[in-house]
Amino acid sequence: MYTLRWIKGQLELLDQTLLPVKTTYIHCTDWRQVAEAIKMLRVRGAPAIGVAAAYAYVLAAKEAGSDAKLPSLAEKQKQLVSWAEELRSTRPTAINLMWAIDRMNQLLSKLTTNIDSKTQTTDTWNSIVQALEEEAVQIEKEDKALTEAMASAGADIFKGQQHLRIMTHCNAGALATAGIGTALGVIRELYKRGQLERVYADETRPLLQGSRLTTFELMEDKIPVTLQTDNMAAYAMQHGLIDAIIVGADRITAQGDVANKIGTYGVAVLAKYHKIPFYVAAPYSTFDLTLTSGNQIPIEMRDPDEVRYFGNRRTAPADVDVLNPAFDVTPHELIAGIITERGVLRPDFKESIQRMK
Amino acid sequence: MYTLRWIKGQLELLDQTLLPVKTTYIHCTDWRQVAEAIKMLRVRGAPAIGVAAAYAYVLAAKEAGSDAKLPSLAEKQKQLVSWAEELRSTRPTAINLMWAIDRMNQLLSKLTTNIDSKTQTTDTWNSIVQALEEEAVQIEKEDKALTEAMASAGADIFKGQQHLRIMTHCNAGALATAGIGTALGVIRELYKRGQLERVYADETRPLLQGSRLTTFELMEDKIPVTLQTDNMAAYAMQHGLIDAIIVGADRITAQGDVANKIGTYGVAVLAKYHKIPFYVAAPYSTFDLTLTSGNQIPIEMRDPDEVRYFGNRRTAPADVDVLNPAFDVTPHELIAGIITERGVLRPDFKESIQRMK
Repeated sequence: MYTLRWIKGQLELLDQTLLPVKTTYIHCTDWRQVAEAIKMLRVRGAPAIGVAAAYAYVLAAKEAGSDAKLPSLAEKQKQLVSWAEELRSTRPTAINLMWAIDRMNQLLSKLTTNIDSKTQTTDTWNSIVQALEEEAVQIEKEDKALTEAMASAGADIFKGQQHLRIMTHCNAGALATAGIGTALGVIRELYKRGQLERVYADETRPLLQGSRLTTFELMEDKIPVTLQTDNMAAYAMQHGLIDAIIVGADRITAQGDVANKIGTYGVAVLAKYHKIPFYVAAPYSTFDLTLTSGNQIPIEMRDPDEVRYFGNRRTAPADVDVLNPAFDVTPHELIAGIITERGVLRPDFKESIQRMK
Repeated sequence: MYTLRWIKGQLELLDQTLLPVKTTYIHCTDWRQVAEAIKMLRVRGAPAIGVAAAYAYVLAAKEAGSDAKLPSLAEKQKQLVSWAEELRSTRPTAINLMWAIDRMNQLLSKLTTNIDSKTQTTDTWNSIVQALEEEAVQIEKEDKALTEAMASAGADIFKGQQHLRIMTHCNAGALATAGIGTALGVIRELYKRGQLERVYADETRPLLQGSRLTTFELMEDKIPVTLQTDNMAAYAMQHGLIDAIIVGADRITAQGDVANKIGTYGVAVLAKYHKIPFYVAAPYSTFDLTLTSGNQIPIEMRDPDEVRYFGNRRTAPADVDVLNPAFDVTPHELIAGIITERGVLRPDFKESIQRMK
């Protein structure tokens, strides 16, 4: 099983909304299919969204190349950048999406700078598309490699500890990256090193990424996992079942405030109260150094029906008012460490993040 | 709409598992139907379970009366007490169930003490059944009256405050009592006094009493309510949306530790962190003065499929390990006050509970 694959100029995406009951792939030949998949959470997880967006950019570049209404290179470039902005708007919180699109835009800009606009040919655009495709492949490769580096750095935190019981929230796993996952990458490495006893997975309402995805991918790897509803996290901590918490991130500010799936902040407060260390695992591309405080991060509000319904079954009054933020922000003071591919950052995060650059 | 009704020797119970989509009543003529309804949460909420159990006791007494295999009064009495124990075992955590059965047992014992075993007739048993029925009716009446008294005492806490935004967990409403509810009774009174702006209701996984029942009954009364998943409670507190929290209780110990629906403890910890007062509303019958510490309260563990499934739809791997405690215990140090029909108890609870007796 794989989360996404670029093959013969197509992006194959596992439709994660159908897990764990069905394993179905979407074959994307149009960047709009990828945009829809990101919006509908068929592909999700900040790093995976970044990789998918890079390939969507390549599909868009191809379309610009074959569009007869865009004869000149300048027109193609303008159209491509405009489509990339549509792609960027699919989900506002995850910074990796912005990061991947910026990286592709920068390459495009570099590739087109020195071309004499009079000598342009179809071949010129084709070579640009080829370079963009190589860049997307490179982004995917890097994502794979950095989850390995994070796993190793994160597991080193627990040197000498045995029988670890780790709680996680949402899915920061192989299904959220091109590699072995961020938080679940660390967990996989701990399991490999024989230090892990069990994972406690929050189900993560409203969309149940924990019950549908985290338990699913851990069970595929034979890693012991216990599923709990989100409101049981406090019970588990109170009863001494949890040694540490590791979650992923969708955006991290320059002072170490972390946006992640709704519910993360509550888990962090509970961890503080129970004196359980709370770790975040996220690649460097998750940091947004243009922001200081977490309250500057835009929080995506989603459809109220995600809370009113469960699958096709309505479980609340049809017109009840609903609060449905997709993310929350955990302030840096609740975080024991941020695990990156460049090592584990410790407080004071403002300083350690600055040093990492 | 009503939660339960004793009419023509039958107990009519609203099947709360079908709300908010269907309003269906179960007509119980056999105490076993009531036991099944309690076990399956068709009727739920500590006070309502107590009232339902008292009527089930009456149905059992009638059955003992007409059972030809139980000719003597002593045999009838023995069988009735044995059935009452089956009824008691349906749910282990809510003390009101035990309280109601104990009260009926005591009356039965008193009624049978002075009867000469040789003079017993069918008429004698019939008069016992009649007295038991009057006692059950009295328990229901008392339950109604004490929710009114609690509502008034609880609302008085907020004298002089306007535009209150109150968070609640699970359903401690009219659907959980014979009256206007415990926590929701206080909320209704605040609304009546013009001091309430909005209720925030946790959906309360796994069985969604918050989304199915609390929003439903508040909307019936036109009280503004916002539904949130349990893991959004921390977000709402962090964003200054909540002025106070009021929840119900299933059992309270002599030092003020409170067993209530799973998730309550987490809300109490979050409230402490955000400096939001956390109140419990529960009648005197909820106190179990035989217990000191909350960890002496038996916690019911329920079927893992409640977490693996949502309605008929499976949302997790079929064989995933599950944690599913129905309740948790909030230690007294997280509680600002306990609202009872005898007034509001404040810390030190050991003292104030002792004084209330």
